[in-house]
Amino acid sequence: MKFCSECASPVVLQIPADDTRERFVCPACGTIHYQNPKMVVGSIPVWEDDGVTKVLLCRRAIEPRLGFWTLPAGFMENNETTSQAAQRETDEEAGAHIKLHELFSILNVPHVHQVHLFYRATLLDLDYAAGVESLEVALFSEEQIPWEDIAFPTTTHTLKFFFANLAQVKQGGQYEVHAHDIFKPIRHG
Amino acid sequence: MKFCSECASPVVLQIPADDTRERFVCPACGTIHYQNPKMVVGSIPVWEDDGVTKVLLCRRAIEPRLGFWTLPAGFMENNETTSQAAQRETDEEAGAHIKLHELFSILNVPHVHQVHLFYRATLLDLDYAAGVESLEVALFSEEQIPWEDIAFPTTTHTLKFFFANLAQVKQGGQYEVHAHDIFKPIRHG
Repeated sequence: MKFCSECASPVVLQIPADDTRERFVCPACGTIHYQNPKMVVGSIPVWEDDGVTKVLLCRRAIEPRLGFWTLPAGFMENNETTSQAAQRETDEEAGAHIKLHELFSILNVPHVHQVHLFYRATLLDLDYAAGVESLEVALFSEEQIPWEDIAFPTTTHTLKFFFANLAQVKQGGQYEVHAHDIFKPIRHG
Repeated sequence: MKFCSECASPVVLQIPADDTRERFVCPACGTIHYQNPKMVVGSIPVWEDDGVTKVLLCRRAIEPRLGFWTLPAGFMENNETTSQAAQRETDEEAGAHIKLHELFSILNVPHVHQVHLFYRATLLDLDYAAGVESLEVALFSEEQIPWEDIAFPTTTHTLKFFFANLAQVKQGGQYEVHAHDIFKPIRHG
């Protein structure tokens, strides 16, 4: 950020009174421009195929990670709830009709200022279709998941949590909320 | 928002290509200024006082809702996780030393573009003290909670969920994650 969005004056980085962090502050009109993490919200759409549990994934038609697979998810919008965001993204990216269930995973990605939430969901029919941000949409059993071609670590972790928890549920257990923090990888060499 | 924060030109409200919502767009440099919900994160600090479970509340020294009581919570910052945000806010507002536990509640407040998260926590000692944003900090049993003087509905709902879930836990049950959406009240007359 270079200019004040309220008065167009150049902003400066400084610690406001009663604060402990540097913010973009406008010396002309006094506006403090706070910057906060964004939420990415999606679903885990599940289909039971002759006793085999399959999950719907989308192959990305846009950057970042064009061509890689992801659960349907995207940035939460103002004026919607997290559940509504999960439903909307599943519709937009996969054209999928779902019944949304409980929150399943919360993943922090602090170095990119994001928190990802995924809800469990049941696919209501097989009339899904790739939206404008997807190249294709397909169902995968645990064995079929293209683990090497998943777009984001938050999807990988959520899928691993999901199939592990599903195995417990099939033994009489319950679904739980799974939390995981993903820190910036340390590069060696 | 009136001016582009990248080039200082006046912005216009329009629906960008491949989008479905109005955004502030800069006609000069093309920047799309997305606006997304913010996260408010806090804790439910618990102290066992001779068999009675008490919760730590803060009386607000700042607007909005100056003078009203709240669980320690505040806006999540960039470069931190939700757990770190809950710890930081509990330290800043209540000077409280806690051990943080699992996520307990997620509350959507779509008309103010906020999602509130609360984590269960155990107070490690009684050396708490009001921070600059609090007038006072005190422990309350369920019967002592000043229900009429709670600052925000998200705190009221979280406290109600907490004491109901606590009663189940004392009967051998488990803590669960509680979700609730708070929509704008409809005003009559």
